[in-house]
Amino acid sequence: MSLAGADTVPRPPLVEPRATLVPAAEVAARLAGLQAGLSGRGLDAALIVQNADLYYFSGTVQRSFLYVPASGEATLFVRKLAERARLESPLAGIVELASPRDLPGLLVQRYGVLPRRAGLELDVLPVLEYRRLEKLFPEASFEDVGRDIVRQRAVKSAWEVERIRAAAAIAVEVCELIPGILREGLSEAEFAGLVEAQARRLGHEGVIRMRAFNQEMFYGQLLTGVSGTAASYLDTPLAGTGLSPAVAQGVSFKTIRHGDHVVFDFVPVREGYIADFTRIFALGELPDELRCAYDAALRIEADVVAAARPGVTCGALYELALATAADKGLSTYFMGYGAGQVRFIGHGVGLELDELPVLTSSDLQLAEGMVFALEPKFVLPGLGAIGVENTWLVTATGLALITESPEHIRRLG
Amino acid sequence: MSLAGADTVPRPPLVEPRATLVPAAEVAARLAGLQAGLSGRGLDAALIVQNADLYYFSGTVQRSFLYVPASGEATLFVRKLAERARLESPLAGIVELASPRDLPGLLVQRYGVLPRRAGLELDVLPVLEYRRLEKLFPEASFEDVGRDIVRQRAVKSAWEVERIRAAAAIAVEVCELIPGILREGLSEAEFAGLVEAQARRLGHEGVIRMRAFNQEMFYGQLLTGVSGTAASYLDTPLAGTGLSPAVAQGVSFKTIRHGDHVVFDFVPVREGYIADFTRIFALGELPDELRCAYDAALRIEADVVAAARPGVTCGALYELALATAADKGLSTYFMGYGAGQVRFIGHGVGLELDELPVLTSSDLQLAEGMVFALEPKFVLPGLGAIGVENTWLVTATGLALITESPEHIRRLG
Repeated sequence: MSLAGADTVPRPPLVEPRATLVPAAEVAARLAGLQAGLSGRGLDAALIVQNADLYYFSGTVQRSFLYVPASGEATLFVRKLAERARLESPLAGIVELASPRDLPGLLVQRYGVLPRRAGLELDVLPVLEYRRLEKLFPEASFEDVGRDIVRQRAVKSAWEVERIRAAAAIAVEVCELIPGILREGLSEAEFAGLVEAQARRLGHEGVIRMRAFNQEMFYGQLLTGVSGTAASYLDTPLAGTGLSPAVAQGVSFKTIRHGDHVVFDFVPVREGYIADFTRIFALGELPDELRCAYDAALRIEADVVAAARPGVTCGALYELALATAADKGLSTYFMGYGAGQVRFIGHGVGLELDELPVLTSSDLQLAEGMVFALEPKFVLPGLGAIGVENTWLVTATGLALITESPEHIRRLG
Repeated sequence: MSLAGADTVPRPPLVEPRATLVPAAEVAARLAGLQAGLSGRGLDAALIVQNADLYYFSGTVQRSFLYVPASGEATLFVRKLAERARLESPLAGIVELASPRDLPGLLVQRYGVLPRRAGLELDVLPVLEYRRLEKLFPEASFEDVGRDIVRQRAVKSAWEVERIRAAAAIAVEVCELIPGILREGLSEAEFAGLVEAQARRLGHEGVIRMRAFNQEMFYGQLLTGVSGTAASYLDTPLAGTGLSPAVAQGVSFKTIRHGDHVVFDFVPVREGYIADFTRIFALGELPDELRCAYDAALRIEADVVAAARPGVTCGALYELALATAADKGLSTYFMGYGAGQVRFIGHGVGLELDELPVLTSSDLQLAEGMVFALEPKFVLPGLGAIGVENTWLVTATGLALITESPEHIRRLG
């Protein structure tokens, strides 16, 4: 069989028409930031390989190497798929790469020289991949730039904040749909599926990127009643029973009953950007202990928001939250219980769920343009988890709310 | 506030009652296999850290180190959450670990000696994590055991095959529900959400683990019409347009129309185990080219299945498939088109989607107990993708089908 005119048929739909491409000015500014860091450290270049970082610095996620010299034009060497890279990325230098073995030769052709000191994302690059690069560049020494990139990415541009707002809008809209979805008799898994279907319809991209080794997440945590008290391997205050020990987090087959409350802890992703959001629904009257804990969470949120502004350290905000929890007599239950307790009250969000700033005992200062989720939560053994979570932008004078949605507990039954 | 009797309240639901725990005999056999490999290579021990491998060798996924001496009892050192590990894992040796710094001391206490030559999963372990371990064990040299573990895990036990069958049953059941879900006017994203909701209800665990760096997957690929022709960074024959360049695979906002066909390429996950499955639905008459290509895919599948048995190399099966595609005049479109073409016709499945055996130009011989997805597919520019995919178990005499479901194209409109 042959396809008559296969070369003249319509091009495949490689870019979703409703999607936004990363503007050239964005990519230029990001690369300039990286290059300033490289120069400052005396590195000749960086070779970027990880998906989130590739998207940040090139506007496209391909199987590729992004070569960024300390000064001059960056080049994206693409193994698969150069055609797609050219449609998506504003970079002028996009070169097909048949094999990684060709990379040194192509670099010499293009730049006249190979790097002697180069940066790699050693925080995420597997050892065997690293050794392959060492063999390709026997004269080079490599240093980590992954942690520099994480620091750079912590400060968002206005364009990025718009994307995070679009992600947040999915979470807020899905939250509004829950009264029409939640009912007694559903299993947690069934309920999650119905909620997630709404998010998909609205453009949730599914894949939630996390930078830390072994961390994994699926839409967040929809937990009901005592399920909220099950902690896990995750670096999160809540985790859930899960459907089996193989993925011991998230929803279970537990049937939702009158008297349960629902922790809607949802991670929306839109055009690569992530927000984080938690609200509470109650099927019946909540026990006093949970209501008091929720009030304490709102108090902690208000205290931290009032204190947060550029220059304030994460540690100061964390201490403030701990002090309020102690003041309410709830330290034991704050951010988890027992061995499940975690030592932070919030985390940066962006192209990955686990970005800077981490609101923990840390000297890191808030800076204008940082975006983080603040999630004061309590875990009360035998009763469940409760708390609130919003995504916030650090402005020149304080914080601006990204996840705009009423904070009261919504009683449904 | 204090919780009266917080220490006597019901334990959190740390294990889903309907979940299966990995039996002690399974874990013992797996550890014995790993230990035989360590002894054979003259390694003193292995230190296992990656989620899928932790689950395989301990029955639990915690933030932990699994220390496996070349002979003797393994010990799981758990940072978070030991309580959960004790409920899920059949291992006798489960020890709480406050900090990785305590690991050498605890090993000396328990084993009297530190390893001099130890195995690590260097295929997945990030460089900076590796360097932390090097500092903890300054006298030790480390070698990769990740690739040995991948080879070991390629051969499944009967218990594992049961789990893969349970995963496959989700894909098959969801496939049967599609006639009630698919309709013109839905966007691909909306359609995917409705399909995925059914999978969740049936116990799909969401997280799809992949071993290769940067590979990521969300439920598989539900592609309609020409969306099937969009290739990507993924090492897959099909990818899709995606919702944005940030996650340039999977569904788009394209509206499903009369005349479209649907490639239902679905990755079910149940109790950690994965299957892979593809069927075709048509809203209207399919063009002759697609129907011919589908017949060719079925022919290739039949040829490969007839030839496959223990001892046959993956390369021989791959060549057979290529020969049949050539015989039909379809080589240009087989397993992708142009730069999107991939060089394999199938891949192992288990706790990860990208396991051995890979059905490519390789000397690896099939062995009894291997489980793989065979996915002959064609990409016809301007028309779409088409093909079939089933998950198969290698038996003593040939292959046994795991994804039992009719293979004809289902015409819905």
